[in-house]
Amino acid sequence: MTDQDLDFTIERLGECRFPSPMRKGRFAGDGERIMYHSRFDDMKPYLAAGAEPPALELAGPRERIFFDPATIACGIVTCGGLCPGINNVIRAVVLSLYHHYGVRRIYGFRYGYEGLVKRLGHNPLDLTPEVVERIGEMGGTILASSRGPQDPAEMVDNVEELGIGILFAIGGDGTLKGAGKIAGEAARRGRPISVIGIPKTIDNDISFIQTTFGFETAVAEAKLATYAANTEALGAKNGIGLVKLMGRDSGFIAAYTALVDSQVNYCLVPEVPFTLPGLLRSLEERLTARGHAVIVVAEGAGQELLAATGGRDASGNVKLGDIGTYLRDAIKEHFARSGREINLKYIDPSYIIRSQPANPHDSALCLLLGHNAVHAGMAGRTNMVVGFWNNQFTHVPIDLATRQRKKIDPDGWLWSSVLASTGQPRDIR
Amino acid sequence: MTDQDLDFTIERLGECRFPSPMRKGRFAGDGERIMYHSRFDDMKPYLAAGAEPPALELAGPRERIFFDPATIACGIVTCGGLCPGINNVIRAVVLSLYHHYGVRRIYGFRYGYEGLVKRLGHNPLDLTPEVVERIGEMGGTILASSRGPQDPAEMVDNVEELGIGILFAIGGDGTLKGAGKIAGEAARRGRPISVIGIPKTIDNDISFIQTTFGFETAVAEAKLATYAANTEALGAKNGIGLVKLMGRDSGFIAAYTALVDSQVNYCLVPEVPFTLPGLLRSLEERLTARGHAVIVVAEGAGQELLAATGGRDASGNVKLGDIGTYLRDAIKEHFARSGREINLKYIDPSYIIRSQPANPHDSALCLLLGHNAVHAGMAGRTNMVVGFWNNQFTHVPIDLATRQRKKIDPDGWLWSSVLASTGQPRDIR
Amino acid sequence: MTDQDLDFTIERLGECRFPSPMRKGRFAGDGERIMYHSRFDDMKPYLAAGAEPPALELAGPRERIFFDPATIACGIVTCGGLCPGINNVIRAVVLSLYHHYGVRRIYGFRYGYEGLVKRLGHNPLDLTPEVVERIGEMGGTILASSRGPQDPAEMVDNVEELGIGILFAIGGDGTLKGAGKIAGEAARRGRPISVIGIPKTIDNDISFIQTTFGFETAVAEAKLATYAANTEALGAKNGIGLVKLMGRDSGFIAAYTALVDSQVNYCLVPEVPFTLPGLLRSLEERLTARGHAVIVVAEGAGQELLAATGGRDASGNVKLGDIGTYLRDAIKEHFARSGREINLKYIDPSYIIRSQPANPHDSALCLLLGHNAVHAGMAGRTNMVVGFWNNQFTHVPIDLATRQRKKIDPDGWLWSSVLASTGQPRDIR
Amino acid sequence: MTDQDLDFTIERLGECRFPSPMRKGRFAGDGERIMYHSRFDDMKPYLAAGAEPPALELAGPRERIFFDPATIACGIVTCGGLCPGINNVIRAVVLSLYHHYGVRRIYGFRYGYEGLVKRLGHNPLDLTPEVVERIGEMGGTILASSRGPQDPAEMVDNVEELGIGILFAIGGDGTLKGAGKIAGEAARRGRPISVIGIPKTIDNDISFIQTTFGFETAVAEAKLATYAANTEALGAKNGIGLVKLMGRDSGFIAAYTALVDSQVNYCLVPEVPFTLPGLLRSLEERLTARGHAVIVVAEGAGQELLAATGGRDASGNVKLGDIGTYLRDAIKEHFARSGREINLKYIDPSYIIRSQPANPHDSALCLLLGHNAVHAGMAGRTNMVVGFWNNQFTHVPIDLATRQRKKIDPDGWLWSSVLASTGQPRDIR
Repeated sequence: MTDQDLDFTIERLGECRFPSPMRKGRFAGDGERIMYHSRFDDMKPYLAAGAEPPALELAGPRERIFFDPATIACGIVTCGGLCPGINNVIRAVVLSLYHHYGVRRIYGFRYGYEGLVKRLGHNPLDLTPEVVERIGEMGGTILASSRGPQDPAEMVDNVEELGIGILFAIGGDGTLKGAGKIAGEAARRGRPISVIGIPKTIDNDISFIQTTFGFETAVAEAKLATYAANTEALGAKNGIGLVKLMGRDSGFIAAYTALVDSQVNYCLVPEVPFTLPGLLRSLEERLTARGHAVIVVAEGAGQELLAATGGRDASGNVKLGDIGTYLRDAIKEHFARSGREINLKYIDPSYIIRSQPANPHDSALCLLLGHNAVHAGMAGRTNMVVGFWNNQFTHVPIDLATRQRKKIDPDGWLWSSVLASTGQPRDIR
Repeated sequence: MTDQDLDFTIERLGECRFPSPMRKGRFAGDGERIMYHSRFDDMKPYLAAGAEPPALELAGPRERIFFDPATIACGIVTCGGLCPGINNVIRAVVLSLYHHYGVRRIYGFRYGYEGLVKRLGHNPLDLTPEVVERIGEMGGTILASSRGPQDPAEMVDNVEELGIGILFAIGGDGTLKGAGKIAGEAARRGRPISVIGIPKTIDNDISFIQTTFGFETAVAEAKLATYAANTEALGAKNGIGLVKLMGRDSGFIAAYTALVDSQVNYCLVPEVPFTLPGLLRSLEERLTARGHAVIVVAEGAGQELLAATGGRDASGNVKLGDIGTYLRDAIKEHFARSGREINLKYIDPSYIIRSQPANPHDSALCLLLGHNAVHAGMAGRTNMVVGFWNNQFTHVPIDLATRQRKKIDPDGWLWSSVLASTGQPRDIR
Repeated sequence: MTDQDLDFTIERLGECRFPSPMRKGRFAGDGERIMYHSRFDDMKPYLAAGAEPPALELAGPRERIFFDPATIACGIVTCGGLCPGINNVIRAVVLSLYHHYGVRRIYGFRYGYEGLVKRLGHNPLDLTPEVVERIGEMGGTILASSRGPQDPAEMVDNVEELGIGILFAIGGDGTLKGAGKIAGEAARRGRPISVIGIPKTIDNDISFIQTTFGFETAVAEAKLATYAANTEALGAKNGIGLVKLMGRDSGFIAAYTALVDSQVNYCLVPEVPFTLPGLLRSLEERLTARGHAVIVVAEGAGQELLAATGGRDASGNVKLGDIGTYLRDAIKEHFARSGREINLKYIDPSYIIRSQPANPHDSALCLLLGHNAVHAGMAGRTNMVVGFWNNQFTHVPIDLATRQRKKIDPDGWLWSSVLASTGQPRDIR
Repeated sequence: MTDQDLDFTIERLGECRFPSPMRKGRFAGDGERIMYHSRFDDMKPYLAAGAEPPALELAGPRERIFFDPATIACGIVTCGGLCPGINNVIRAVVLSLYHHYGVRRIYGFRYGYEGLVKRLGHNPLDLTPEVVERIGEMGGTILASSRGPQDPAEMVDNVEELGIGILFAIGGDGTLKGAGKIAGEAARRGRPISVIGIPKTIDNDISFIQTTFGFETAVAEAKLATYAANTEALGAKNGIGLVKLMGRDSGFIAAYTALVDSQVNYCLVPEVPFTLPGLLRSLEERLTARGHAVIVVAEGAGQELLAATGGRDASGNVKLGDIGTYLRDAIKEHFARSGREINLKYIDPSYIIRSQPANPHDSALCLLLGHNAVHAGMAGRTNMVVGFWNNQFTHVPIDLATRQRKKIDPDGWLWSSVLASTGQPRDIR
């Protein structure tokens, strides 16, 4: 992303007239910001020019707030696929609204954006502290989810009718863009409705978020699968364990899994192309040398090897060809043709991974994301997501957060470390 | 099994001339036996007739042993698919031979029965206490495995050449039958070679073994998958979680998983037939009533619904049709036709389950199985497996143990409890 | 226990006039019994005499029941210390009463027997399927607990007033004796009140129960502590890891933990005396030979080494001296005196162990115990506990179950296996 | 720390004459740096003055290296208390030296700095890829450890004699200072010996390291204890669960545990003073309102409440009074005096926590720390530690890293979030 793209101004609904009811801890000053760059080389031009470097608004409770907690209602909606930690975020938002600010009407919309469309007849849940008390130990989402957009006008009609001041949308790229449209529709109507996104992407591929919630849990659970793949590979002649992991556009889960489990010998990600003959040749050499191999492939890797499927799912995502079964069949066929006995075991653990409860790391992250989302909404911010950058929580405009996916830099330290750990060729071709 | 089938006489190689070097604990008397029956109704006829009821020889160390530990070599082989605990059994056998009896030459044959055929060139490993010290924490088998039989004569040639007195074979039905053939060949040659089987079947389907090692671990790990299935089912409209579990001929894993995770609504096992229309009808009613469903299906269930595949795998097992993907597709198609939106997630966790390390329960069980296998071999028993019955370790002739699979009794308490827990119809048709 | 002591006759409240509403599965016949003995030697005298051997009534649903589910109320109480699985039992009892029989009024008494005394003012909870749905994933007891007896008359007054037909008491020795007194008081008054005990003892020390719920979980969790002890012992010069585990009168947890974790070098239990000089001498030898040691001691072991404390806790249990800190100090002092540097780490994991949720094994066990308790109560049994013997669920008179604790037989296979696994001296003196 | 204190200049042994044998991935440029500050307010003065802001040298492989891998030997030593991940770091260092650079002589010194003193007779281990292959799954340290310093001259004598070019020291504050003295002694002698520290502190209290290895694992494991504390507190009348966690000078473990487990009601840390009467008063109110409470106390908290003990341990750390047992006794006594029944359970899980294996997050972190330590050493850096700052690995002078501990800022966002999550009073007095 070029610096010209970086425009961090956060939209505000208006003046913050109410004193915050929070009495503990520290308030964030409105001018506090976190710098986008942390490498000195990136900072040099600004120093040379005496110019202000790009920086994000610091998140946190404000001394004065925009909404009157006594009268406001709030709503929460969860969209897209499951990810560890959604319930923790719901819980944190509800408890913060209730205990930190005194909000008493909190609606949980069911089945994603469908639940915001009155016509579809999904009645929202009343979210109280009792309802959410123990949900942090559960995977999934108590609100259930769906994919795909709905008409912003219909949704804002419902939001207005329910007297909702802040709408929290937990979801990925498409969900956040949808949230932006709701914010836009509300602005067009001149209604003081805050729309706050909490980025959910198990792939960890949202810009300005160093690690999204659920990602650490996903990597930890993925090790179950690579452990199994390695055990199977070691347990038979020319054993090959092949694991498909999540990662449509960005291979962070696959890459970190390779760092976590050093039994992984090949890590294939969308950002780094490879050829099938290159992979087969390297695999042959490895089987000759070591007698077994473990391969991790992100679902979005090697799409150029597959015939285009052409379609899109309900969320508007391009339907990917299945690189996992493609590689499984291609490897089996290759060695069958060459007359070499192999024992390939294929593992696709995606549903098991994404439905687990948040691990302790993600529990804490979700708590803080939820709290900061509430602080942002109460302080009248809108059309933004809660970010996490240089270990600080920040405010990021939705438009900016969704402009471009975060990806592995094939020339950066992460991929370099993956190559060092797996020992795989730099170019598999 | 009728009582006429029950012949518990254990083959012995000859007189036990050596005093046992074990100094601790209690020795089993040669006449000690464990009764096969534990229900009073089964005992009545014997009481009436004053006849001796069927009983199994008690396992355990004997005061006098057949082999001279100073001169004997021993061998271990692992065959068939992975199962939690194989390494624990290897470890227990090696440590017991080494520390309890003082045996110093222990061969670990590689790649199943292939490793016993000299011509195939797999050199055996030297198994020492150092080699096996920490393997109990590892899934899989350090000896690796293969499927299928080898020529008993070739194997006994090698066993003789290496000076092996006791051969321990860890494996399932086919492996144990193969072990019986090795014992037979050795007997034919008049060689005092003991062959001791340690039954390995994750399906828990071997007669005279109340629970095989790895079974408890498998059930515990299966919960990961049903947890995911339920979370996914709850997270979407008309969510259906479908989990395929191991269980070729016997549905014990599926049945116990249903008892462990009470979110399971349907448990389908090989022993209890069902029809597809019956399942679909019941599923429709459940979705209408509750909005989600979790189905667990054993891989051997509903085979009559599938076109016969006709083949057999290398172990000689009939190749099963894939009931998991069959049900997945049939359910999807049915609801697509009826125009009702469902969200079905299909999970096949088999490799993840079977490659895990033994849980604490199975660790202890494997230790005791391994110790008792060594005691049996040192005391000159052969052509037998170590059993576990009425919570006691026993000796069971291989022929008897493999004559008939253990299955769920559709009229017994286990299946009755599964029905009570899932709430599924007694007859799904 | 001599056979003369064995009187398994179960008290019944009267004729079973109602047809069971359960439509699925198999009913237990009233004459079905499970034999107490499973060793052939124990059966011989009966065969010789043509006499009926002792046997326990088989548990399970009956075709005709005593209570009318439409009018009956039921109550549940939990007493004594925590144990993994209590909530699972509560859940199973409630769901079985509700779904299998149609009972609609179920009271959960708070804080043990205190909750049954109206005067003390603890209002009972209404236990519905919604309340108990997810409690199986939680450790502890949602009813909370207390120690010590209350006046049976006061309790029966309350039970009568609430219209309770069946009272389920989940607890250990003292609790079950208390339950017997309640049953006695009800009988004295001629009231048809069934009192069913569900034995809870993490120590696994109740007669006629092969394994109590929570025991497997406790052993599994105990491995966390022995793992830590061994890691610490290996991480320093002459490292000693000392772990105190539960086991007041019976050392089953310590013994099985030694089988599960073969890094344990000494297992000290109440059933097998040892002397301090003997232990110190053996420890010195081991440190010289191996440089580290791991000791597991049951809380009731070596009480003869401690000055009597003389008191009793609120449950009436003799207050034990603390063998853990005694050994810790004695070992440190001994080596300080002898001038040898050691590094001893003492670990007491009791609260962490006992408060964990039930593992999958215990979840299933608790489900079946709860179901069978309900079946027994509905069929008019009283003054009994649900037992588990030879892998079958049974009915055991409270008086018999509490007459004598189950203990490790120092001459039996379990202790023999512990000696074989730890390598510790048979006599530590 | 004021900016004047920040001198990040890294010592180098001399010119890097050898080309790196690493062929994969990207090399770090020598001028690449990571800025120390990430808040815009901290950067303002530099922008105003056009001055260079403080920045740390970026870690990573260099294109040219100082040592000849063919001739160099390397050594590793581990000191101080256990921490999850030590073995992972050892493994990463050995594998990187061996595979990335081709170093073939790697010594593992036993028992901390004692192992570097030849006179004490602990022979070093030969660390090969085979030796370290699976140690990443083990807690503790295969090299064992000890506390306290040794004579730098004696240690450098030995290092010289063994031909060691790079010495890796894994340890905390005292260890790193000791490493600095070794580097100083080598420099005084004019020997080109690189000393690279890898900071090990479970307390996460080292400056310039955003998170030390083992910290995330510790927090995750600590949840076991708070889970138990909460379960016990809920299971009895006026139940209080009191957990002592690590944290001598800095309460990061306690604080993050409070964020992870929202059942924690009080978090007491060294950085925030409290009074006993204040705590007791608040506890009384909470018991009245909610009937139970969970308290987490860092071992270094409330030291001002305890009589000074005056001593220091072998590492030179001030011996702390035991705040855990102090609070336990004080709370029990207080309520006994006031006649209110409470049920307090005290849990000290330190050894269980610190001896666990690294979790997946820490496994990856240790891998990268180990690799970057090797890169730094091979490139001739010395007298430095590998840091982690703004999500980049860096080089930090030992002197700077050990000058001042990292602590919780009572006015910062972390403590503010802890107050928001626990609901505890801002001032407990």
